Amino acid sequence: MSAAATDIGGTFDQLWSELLPIGVTAAGGYRRFAWNDADLAARLWFASAAGARDLDVQVDRNGNLWAWWLPAGWSGEPREAFVSGSHLDSVPDGGAFDGPLGVVSALCAIDVLRSRGVQPLRPVAVAVFADEEGARFGVACAGSRLATGTLAPGAAQALTDVDGVSLDEAMRRAGVDTARLGRDDDTLGKVGVFVELHIEQGRALVDLDAPVGIGSSIWPHGRWRFSFEGEANHAGTTRLVDRRDPTLPFAAAVLRARELAAERGGVATFGRVYVEPNGTNAIPSKVTAWLDARGPDLTIVEAIVSGVSELAHDRAVASRVVLTVTAESVSDVVTFSVDVNARLHKVLNSAGGLGAVPELGTGAGHDAGVLSSAVPTAMLFVRNPSGVSHSPGEFAERADCIAGVEALAAVMTDWVTAPPSVEVS
Amino acid sequence: MSAAATDIGGTFDQLWSELLPIGVTAAGGYRRFAWNDADLAARLWFASAAGARDLDVQVDRNGNLWAWWLPAGWSGEPREAFVSGSHLDSVPDGGAFDGPLGVVSALCAIDVLRSRGVQPLRPVAVAVFADEEGARFGVACAGSRLATGTLAPGAAQALTDVDGVSLDEAMRRAGVDTARLGRDDDTLGKVGVFVELHIEQGRALVDLDAPVGIGSSIWPHGRWRFSFEGEANHAGTTRLVDRRDPTLPFAAAVLRARELAAERGGVATFGRVYVEPNGTNAIPSKVTAWLDARGPDLTIVEAIVSGVSELAHDRAVASRVVLTVTAESVSDVVTFSVDVNARLHKVLNSAGGLGAVPELGTGAGHDAGVLSSAVPTAMLFVRNPSGVSHSPGEFAERADCIAGVEALAAVMTDWVTAPPSVEVS
Repeated sequence: MSAAATDIGGTFDQLWSELLPIGVTAAGGYRRFAWNDADLAARLWFASAAGARDLDVQVDRNGNLWAWWLPAGWSGEPREAFVSGSHLDSVPDGGAFDGPLGVVSALCAIDVLRSRGVQPLRPVAVAVFADEEGARFGVACAGSRLATGTLAPGAAQALTDVDGVSLDEAMRRAGVDTARLGRDDDTLGKVGVFVELHIEQGRALVDLDAPVGIGSSIWPHGRWRFSFEGEANHAGTTRLVDRRDPTLPFAAAVLRARELAAERGGVATFGRVYVEPNGTNAIPSKVTAWLDARGPDLTIVEAIVSGVSELAHDRAVASRVVLTVTAESVSDVVTFSVDVNARLHKVLNSAGGLGAVPELGTGAGHDAGVLSSAVPTAMLFVRNPSGVSHSPGEFAERADCIAGVEALAAVMTDWVTAPPSVEVS
Repeated sequence: MSAAATDIGGTFDQLWSELLPIGVTAAGGYRRFAWNDADLAARLWFASAAGARDLDVQVDRNGNLWAWWLPAGWSGEPREAFVSGSHLDSVPDGGAFDGPLGVVSALCAIDVLRSRGVQPLRPVAVAVFADEEGARFGVACAGSRLATGTLAPGAAQALTDVDGVSLDEAMRRAGVDTARLGRDDDTLGKVGVFVELHIEQGRALVDLDAPVGIGSSIWPHGRWRFSFEGEANHAGTTRLVDRRDPTLPFAAAVLRARELAAERGGVATFGRVYVEPNGTNAIPSKVTAWLDARGPDLTIVEAIVSGVSELAHDRAVASRVVLTVTAESVSDVVTFSVDVNARLHKVLNSAGGLGAVPELGTGAGHDAGVLSSAVPTAMLFVRNPSGVSHSPGEFAERADCIAGVEALAAVMTDWVTAPPSVEVS
């Protein structure tokens, strides 16, 4: 065990140190936004790391990357594959772990199986889903949503970034044939199970004193775009009564969102805001802001959003501002398969070293949540000492990362070596 | 009169049509920010238009442009000059008239005097003050403030734009020797009177049914930077109680500013806002917002700002957010010279065609207000049918612009032909 642990550590350190500089800012955060230069560099790094392992890299119809390890003598298309992975894009000034830890851990797990002489009976793949954070085009998990058909190709193609570049154009520039976007049953048909490893984005594992946990559910969540249209005018000479100032209903919406989230037991955030024309001495013509709302069930999320919208509409009318609220993405609760999780518990408990592995729910969306509508899906979480995420301060201890790789390798080994008669959910 | 009016119209149309395309956006607004490409192109246009009139163009120590028309036989440095002009830079998506109308009108007025055979006894200059709007570096009237010594060179040089470029660097790139920035008594010593013509940024002249007005005073005004520093974290997984969300005290400040402005009889606007990292699913780490506050006297302005700061500080503490409020520029009331204005009334009343010319105060800051601490200063306003300014919708009728040129030409003629014994103010 100690020799293997050393190997894992060396492999992990190598991959981590290669990926760490890609798209990093002076402040230590990441700006790997879907299809930008840093994101493409990270994808290229993945293709290179996969190629160095003799994995066969494929780009699916929706721009997601798949690196395949087929059993010796396997013929025809992969099926019943064990797939792990995550994403490489980031939120603005995001941390190093959110996404990349899952990709690096999956590559490491393959190295572990090979170093231990495991002969898989079924294919293994490492997947990198495109545009998970939605930082540039607004819709989270665009790659997995397109693949599962929960995001329509036309709607996706029409999304634009802040510079007016469409997702269609960005993907085409990156070599994706966007005429082929859409539900991809061929690719999903190859997947037996998808297990996404991810850094925890909270402190549940700290409180539970556990390095690794199993995901139980993902809270319902969504994004709503609030567009407040007023009228630009001079900040010094325009009388208060003549103003159509969009900042007033926006500010009221920010405060109401917090109130309602507290009342209802959810969370609500206006984290992304554009003010136009954004001049000190000009009343803004427009404020565009996105409400991210989540809660333990969808009725709570909907109650928060409708309550915020209602107050914002009233305040907008009072300021002669036109408010448009658009639901950009809404995801109901995801409960991961009880059967798959039971198998994960059994494997991890017998693998040793991890103690009793707890289950935990999360308020964060993941590709695993999107894919759960199409294939059996599970998640593993790695402890985050501060709980901080979507920030340069996001961090996991190396020992916990290696425990995560060990857990993933155990689960992978179990899946690929189980006799054909074993059925999963 | 009708033949002269035709000449003015042709000159005005020519200059206006040359300047109009420079820095215009598809939406019809302007982005001529201090020392950017559009601003430099507009400055070049001015040098060219002045050169075409055999005016001698000089750049002063602080980057302001001066185009001189010296009396025949004048020797030595100019003195007791009649100076008119304004600025060519704009707010983000600003209108075509704010600034440029004063520059074009001053050039036209010189053409009028020459076409009428006026032989000036004193020099005339058209001035273009740099960086009036402060759209890029945050401090309004930077060129005139530097010249009058009310902005320290070191403080100005250290200002930075949103990309981190310093004003020092931007000016040096544009060929200004920034080692020489600072109070410029040599240049100001040449000025006998400065009369700035400007589009009105309100509807007072509409209500008074007058095409042209004389400025009486400029409201006290200032800009305060509110920096709310919280902590970036995941918008889905971070409990409300664990958040340090800077949008909450910011939103409270926006609403409080409006309340206090209404209570106190002033105006207050948060028109410029930056949210970092500005991701939909990230609690912001920081909100930076600028409060523009103005009122009939400085105590009212100060009461508004201190009231907003107080509430914002309380709310910041409650959210564990660190608030820093920095006064970037504060200007006390400017009351233009009663004596100069009396002379303007006399000239304009006898010039005919304008009717009784009213006086009006304004909430907008101007270079004329800054210069009034150093030289006799007056303002002429041209009617704005909608009152809209700092917006692509800003507009003045051509006939009113020509009336403005006529008024400025009359005032210029009076000044430059008056015998030496006439004292002003």
